[in-house]
Amino acid sequence: MQTPYSHLIDLNDYPVTWWNKVVKLGAEIYQHPQRYVQACAGKIMATLFYEPSTRTQMSFQSAMIRLGGSIIGFDNPMSSSVSKGENLKDTTKVVSSYSDILIIRHPMAGSALAAAQTADCSVVNAGDGGHLHPTQTLTDLLTLHMEKGRLGHLTVGLCGDLLYGRTVHSLCKALSCYEGNEFVLISTPELQMPDYILKILDQSGCTYRVETSLDTAIGELDVLYMTRIQRERFASEAEYLAQRDVYCLTPEKMAHARPDLAVLHPLPRVDEISVAVDADARALYFKQAQYGMYIRMALILMLLESKPKHDLLHGIADAHLRCVNSKCITATESYLPHRFLQTDDGMVCEYCEERVL
Amino acid sequence: MQTPYSHLIDLNDYPVTWWNKVVKLGAEIYQHPQRYVQACAGKIMATLFYEPSTRTQMSFQSAMIRLGGSIIGFDNPMSSSVSKGENLKDTTKVVSSYSDILIIRHPMAGSALAAAQTADCSVVNAGDGGHLHPTQTLTDLLTLHMEKGRLGHLTVGLCGDLLYGRTVHSLCKALSCYEGNEFVLISTPELQMPDYILKILDQSGCTYRVETSLDTAIGELDVLYMTRIQRERFASEAEYLAQRDVYCLTPEKMAHARPDLAVLHPLPRVDEISVAVDADARALYFKQAQYGMYIRMALILMLLESKPKHDLLHGIADAHLRCVNSKCITATESYLPHRFLQTDDGMVCEYCEERVL
Amino acid sequence: MQTPYSHLIDLNDYPVTWWNKVVKLGAEIYQHPQRYVQACAGKIMATLFYEPSTRTQMSFQSAMIRLGGSIIGFDNPMSSSVSKGENLKDTTKVVSSYSDILIIRHPMAGSALAAAQTADCSVVNAGDGGHLHPTQTLTDLLTLHMEKGRLGHLTVGLCGDLLYGRTVHSLCKALSCYEGNEFVLISTPELQMPDYILKILDQSGCTYRVETSLDTAIGELDVLYMTRIQRERFASEAEYLAQRDVYCLTPEKMAHARPDLAVLHPLPRVDEISVAVDADARALYFKQAQYGMYIRMALILMLLESKPKHDLLHGIADAHLRCVNSKCITATESYLPHRFLQTDDGMVCEYCEERVL
Repeated sequence: MQTPYSHLIDLNDYPVTWWNKVVKLGAEIYQHPQRYVQACAGKIMATLFYEPSTRTQMSFQSAMIRLGGSIIGFDNPMSSSVSKGENLKDTTKVVSSYSDILIIRHPMAGSALAAAQTADCSVVNAGDGGHLHPTQTLTDLLTLHMEKGRLGHLTVGLCGDLLYGRTVHSLCKALSCYEGNEFVLISTPELQMPDYILKILDQSGCTYRVETSLDTAIGELDVLYMTRIQRERFASEAEYLAQRDVYCLTPEKMAHARPDLAVLHPLPRVDEISVAVDADARALYFKQAQYGMYIRMALILMLLESKPKHDLLHGIADAHLRCVNSKCITATESYLPHRFLQTDDGMVCEYCEERVL
Repeated sequence: MQTPYSHLIDLNDYPVTWWNKVVKLGAEIYQHPQRYVQACAGKIMATLFYEPSTRTQMSFQSAMIRLGGSIIGFDNPMSSSVSKGENLKDTTKVVSSYSDILIIRHPMAGSALAAAQTADCSVVNAGDGGHLHPTQTLTDLLTLHMEKGRLGHLTVGLCGDLLYGRTVHSLCKALSCYEGNEFVLISTPELQMPDYILKILDQSGCTYRVETSLDTAIGELDVLYMTRIQRERFASEAEYLAQRDVYCLTPEKMAHARPDLAVLHPLPRVDEISVAVDADARALYFKQAQYGMYIRMALILMLLESKPKHDLLHGIADAHLRCVNSKCITATESYLPHRFLQTDDGMVCEYCEERVL
Repeated sequence: MQTPYSHLIDLNDYPVTWWNKVVKLGAEIYQHPQRYVQACAGKIMATLFYEPSTRTQMSFQSAMIRLGGSIIGFDNPMSSSVSKGENLKDTTKVVSSYSDILIIRHPMAGSALAAAQTADCSVVNAGDGGHLHPTQTLTDLLTLHMEKGRLGHLTVGLCGDLLYGRTVHSLCKALSCYEGNEFVLISTPELQMPDYILKILDQSGCTYRVETSLDTAIGELDVLYMTRIQRERFASEAEYLAQRDVYCLTPEKMAHARPDLAVLHPLPRVDEISVAVDADARALYFKQAQYGMYIRMALILMLLESKPKHDLLHGIADAHLRCVNSKCITATESYLPHRFLQTDDGMVCEYCEERVL
């Protein structure tokens, strides 16, 4: 299935050369923003945020405005036709006929892939539930490119909730495509990186090692990517209180880090980085958020200027298979064509990438 | 009472020649949008949506942006000064002093007429409760003009809830002003077109006929205008389940329709058109929504460029009359001058057009 | 502590000469708006409204648009990252890296001062709880300049809730800096102007007199500044009903006023000015709201074009002092440096200006 528009649903729909092109363009825009102030003049971006995400929405909006374009959209499903029971297709179809690019954030996995099938403009996935958030990963890549000067040959520490953290999974997969990266996976035993990511690292030839203490690992890192551990992920409140400090970045821990360490965090943070660390020149998470605006400028330009190069749906139709994930968009939008992908672990739904029956 | 600004409160405030002019301009903009990209440069539209209507609001917003103008507004009465008890006049008065055109949607009948009396800019009625929604009707006219090439000599089927459906009443009245239209009114006996509309059709010289089956009628139609039947309109749940399919448009029913049928729907739809019909080239409801943006561009231009040609209030003041409609804006905004219109059925309130005491 | 950006947190951070400059520029923009339509081209304003204030937000937004700039922002804390527990610093830090000027409204006193410390752009206080609202006062000054032609030698009646009314306190303090102003303070005995304001008037050499009847005072006024008395401020419901009319402006009371009286009100009004007064040419509160847009245009220009001239924090650090005001931003944002100011009444917190322990 091909549409006349270029979309970004999943980073893996594009080759690494395309990622590099977006990153390079992001860096160019960062250095010469004035050259792009009219690049999208007359274009409209619609942001359909079915769940709130102020920072992501404003990042896209300011990106479009800095390209000379305009914005419409909603950030509040309760104030929208959604609350009247309209399906995703109808909302998407109509709004896409008003605009040139549609940014969608939605609590259900596969929602952006669903929207792109019928939209009359480009669609960008700004987070589909716990599934994908490709512009965060592009943000991380631009940040490393700008701050470390390279995307390979880095020793990258990933710290926090590695089991459920969508962001670290995606970054890990992305960095495994570059040569010579080494990963230090820092978490409690209960929140370790899932096996399928470790398998990807193995296959890519990247090395990795598991650690349970941030203190032990920090000294050897080029990059430290912090993520939040939600209190409810711990076995008990006692366990939480005991472990919390082990995974909280403080000035004391920073004292053992290299002078050129880059500390990143997808934000919002809660307690996992002490506010006292903000003053450290190696704390780059706010700068990272700003790079997020520039990479989105690059992405918008790329999508609006390029012809689509790949099919939207690659999977097979099989009447005997069905997705049983209640958080998959196919569970609520009954008109969607069901498609399935063959993986090492069996068939998965193309929308949510969960195992199927 | 005359104001220095042109408003659109009720289509009937303008002659048919004006409607035709807006439709013609809408068609011209659709064909040559580039000619209009600066037409409203420097102008501001404020959208005051006291009840949410995502599609209508975005349609107006993208219309203004495509004319080179800018937008401000709110979509959430709970986030507004309204929640502090401010009256409609004060909000309207202030916001109109910031902007050039004000789009108002409000749950009370007559609210746009009320706002226009004191606003310091043009006012457009984007839906005042169950009363009027003139830009939907203009959208329908542009769609017929573009897709059928004419507004007269059409056989138009209206299907669904004809008793309470504001949209079909307004469209019926509008199309009765053109020559040679024939109406097929398709509904359950309980949801038939009200007598006052039938009287208008009679007086206009249009013919009409009542049908209870969509299947029977579909073969002879040039246009099929579908509307939603709300479950609670049926006598009982059993009745609903029995009747539902009779008024639901499916590929099977489309098989009996003419090859040049135009299927329209004001959206949002729920179940009354099967999603499988979307793929049929005769399904024009998404295109209709897009025409909605172009007709609003034409309307904005017309209102901002023309001098007002009519009084805002035409009715008489009569201290012995009062409007008893609790959903009329005069019920909550006590400062409004009460005005009444003489009709065949007696005196009606000029704001809500309900019978008065 | 100095930041590289100019902010407006408190009018008193600037000398009267600066106020005059803003007022003069506001008047110039009002007279020649065309000269400024590109003044902020390419700039982005972010409005972070942690509590709703439709009019203030739209006033800022239309100001920025009329200068050729663009807007992003939120008006609904529930749709924002705030609801995920993000602190004010992180939100401010990130959004300020997307934009050129940040307008903040927040229920906690001192929130704008807090935000300005870390923001990467100019910050404007659009109301921090019951504490400060400097752009309202600038609006009042521009209104007097435009409508009375001067800011001194005015007899100004202030009527309503003078005890709790933030707006009248601020206006009083501001007008006391100009020569020859006389104040008539009209309120119930329970709601009289607080002593610290009277002390400021005394020190400035302005004269004032206390009145309990609007009827008695109105005949001698150049300016009547009305404010709302909340029902719950009265000793009892009986007291409220008895007193209400005394402080309500009606056409009857206007009959005793000078022909050149200027009636102002910060809006929203409830009952304290009869709607019948709106038609009086001396009722200038709607025009005042419009001047609010022009003074904000002037302010945005001034802040974006000028280098910061003063330190953000002037107070001293003292580990033995702490602010005990539960509505002070230091109560919730624990990373903020505590600072205290020496006043005649002892030490006060620099954020909320409340007495400390």
